[in-house]
Amino acid sequence: MEQFQRTLEAVVETDTEYGIKAQERLDFLTKPPGSLGVLEQIAVKLACIQQNPMPRLGKKTVLVMAGDHGVVEEGVSAFPQEVTPQMVLNFLGEGAAINVLAKQADAKVVVTDVGVASPIAEHPSLYQKNVRRGTRNMVKEAAMTMEEAIEAIEVGIEIVTKEIDKGATIVATGEMGIGNTTPSSAILACFSGDELERITGRGTGVNDAGLHKKQQAIRTAIEINQPDVNNPLDVLRKVGGLEIAALTGVILGAAAKKVPVVIDGFISTAAALVAYKLKPETKDYIIASHISQEPGHKVMLDMIGLQPMLYLDMRLGEGTGAVLAFHMIEAATRIINEMATFAEAGVSEGK
Amino acid sequence: MEQFQRTLEAVVETDTEYGIKAQERLDFLTKPPGSLGVLEQIAVKLACIQQNPMPRLGKKTVLVMAGDHGVVEEGVSAFPQEVTPQMVLNFLGEGAAINVLAKQADAKVVVTDVGVASPIAEHPSLYQKNVRRGTRNMVKEAAMTMEEAIEAIEVGIEIVTKEIDKGATIVATGEMGIGNTTPSSAILACFSGDELERITGRGTGVNDAGLHKKQQAIRTAIEINQPDVNNPLDVLRKVGGLEIAALTGVILGAAAKKVPVVIDGFISTAAALVAYKLKPETKDYIIASHISQEPGHKVMLDMIGLQPMLYLDMRLGEGTGAVLAFHMIEAATRIINEMATFAEAGVSEGK
Repeated sequence: MEQFQRTLEAVVETDTEYGIKAQERLDFLTKPPGSLGVLEQIAVKLACIQQNPMPRLGKKTVLVMAGDHGVVEEGVSAFPQEVTPQMVLNFLGEGAAINVLAKQADAKVVVTDVGVASPIAEHPSLYQKNVRRGTRNMVKEAAMTMEEAIEAIEVGIEIVTKEIDKGATIVATGEMGIGNTTPSSAILACFSGDELERITGRGTGVNDAGLHKKQQAIRTAIEINQPDVNNPLDVLRKVGGLEIAALTGVILGAAAKKVPVVIDGFISTAAALVAYKLKPETKDYIIASHISQEPGHKVMLDMIGLQPMLYLDMRLGEGTGAVLAFHMIEAATRIINEMATFAEAGVSEGK
Repeated sequence: MEQFQRTLEAVVETDTEYGIKAQERLDFLTKPPGSLGVLEQIAVKLACIQQNPMPRLGKKTVLVMAGDHGVVEEGVSAFPQEVTPQMVLNFLGEGAAINVLAKQADAKVVVTDVGVASPIAEHPSLYQKNVRRGTRNMVKEAAMTMEEAIEAIEVGIEIVTKEIDKGATIVATGEMGIGNTTPSSAILACFSGDELERITGRGTGVNDAGLHKKQQAIRTAIEINQPDVNNPLDVLRKVGGLEIAALTGVILGAAAKKVPVVIDGFISTAAALVAYKLKPETKDYIIASHISQEPGHKVMLDMIGLQPMLYLDMRLGEGTGAVLAFHMIEAATRIINEMATFAEAGVSEGK
């Protein structure tokens, strides 16, 4: 609890003075002012975060948090729960999509078991931080106790702090947890009050019957648990998940250390929404990556005030969309550092 | 003319059999079927083009075509015409946005003067293929003769063929030409019949008065020249541009050589629209990259039936959006070649 409170307090607004200087530099470069759009906005955001008008990136790290969900016994997922630990092993064996895409982006993959239902063998690349072997079934009771939720958040803070201390200059959020679009939609439903039909999707691919079960499970979970929407921790513990809580911790921890954090898809954004509700200043450190197939994803991004840049119709999670966005973010830093100015290149400026 | 006709004849539909095999492979990989969305579609498209169920990419090349426009004397651009050769020199000096972003994507930049108004000094990295020192003012007469338009198309075919023979496995289109959103909107207006207010934008940043001049210039050019909308070459020569014609040649030439071509923004897409109208099979070889700020861009992409993947609010041209998309296309090939299958990783499949 103490680490969590300290981290919340350490998250402060970024310094816009550096952003103004970055924009001045961008406007001297040989292109019409503003013509690189979002790349320029990212360069400005990084300038504010790094307190450097010419921001640069070094090591990149994606933090994959794994956890299971008691609610899967309601039949809300197309895949069995055993897939969570199997996919953790696949991450460690470097055979998953996140491994392939992280390698391309020259990013390190760090995997943490924060709440997988069955034990996973020791592995040099695995952080063993299991808070509980899966959440309780939120249709029947609260998914976590308050203590468990905060412990999971603190796992995220601890791991991201460790990775930043090891040299990460930008981090991305990733997750694995069969059934975890269900708690993510439930979190969104609490904060937005939207119709469940509008914000509940097919996750990894449930059929119509599965989608109906999902919506019913979320409806019952909210009725039974009565989350206090003015208390983000109450929402998170009652209808969230351990890996979602850990990602909330990753996002808060990165912001506290003044390191940009790139969020992936629907589940990562649910974690970001909780972080934003806990401390709105967190937004200054978050970069959105892609827009997923989940219908609630855009609703969440709009609530935080973020714009996705990649439209790839993806719905995989793991951090895959976030590491693809690393290429765009690196492009932004290269533009501001490497392009010639009008004066250097002898190019006439516009009217 | 003969080379142009031969190239048109060489563009044939891709072989969907290889795409089916690629999708089978994708469905064996450790992810829910279809969950990588557009990346999977790109892998399938490349499989069809390369006639290989596990497509790979080697050398990447962006072809930047430069040309000037007589219509700039109507006050349609925020920048003076002298910027076209200045920016060509900036490309050759490697100080422009396209150089920085191509370097990041490990792509080669090839610059061609196909229609710049003033002579450019020899440079080892510049193809000197000037067909005419800028187009005529389309408000007063046809921008090009039919011979000039075909010669410019053949410049594009020649350069792309040469670069493919040198080892390019994927190419991107780029351009530089002060004023060239005006002919691009004019081409679109001919083919779509849309209101000019809907499809004419601010280019590199004209004000309201400039935007009005642009719309008026396009309206007059179409009235004066009466392009035959059933004859794409007639549209291209009367209200197009030399660099646009050359890019039409690049796109047709790449398709004829069975090499994928990534199109950039509004001007590149106008060239692609002409290529598509000349030979619809060309579409099988085109990959769309980003959606620009130009309001007509989406209209054009819809007409060809292409979906952009990057939403970066860019409006620079040069091929910048296309080379950013190289990262996504490379991701698609890595996924299909490097990910583990369910069997290899011991992961359970879904219901």
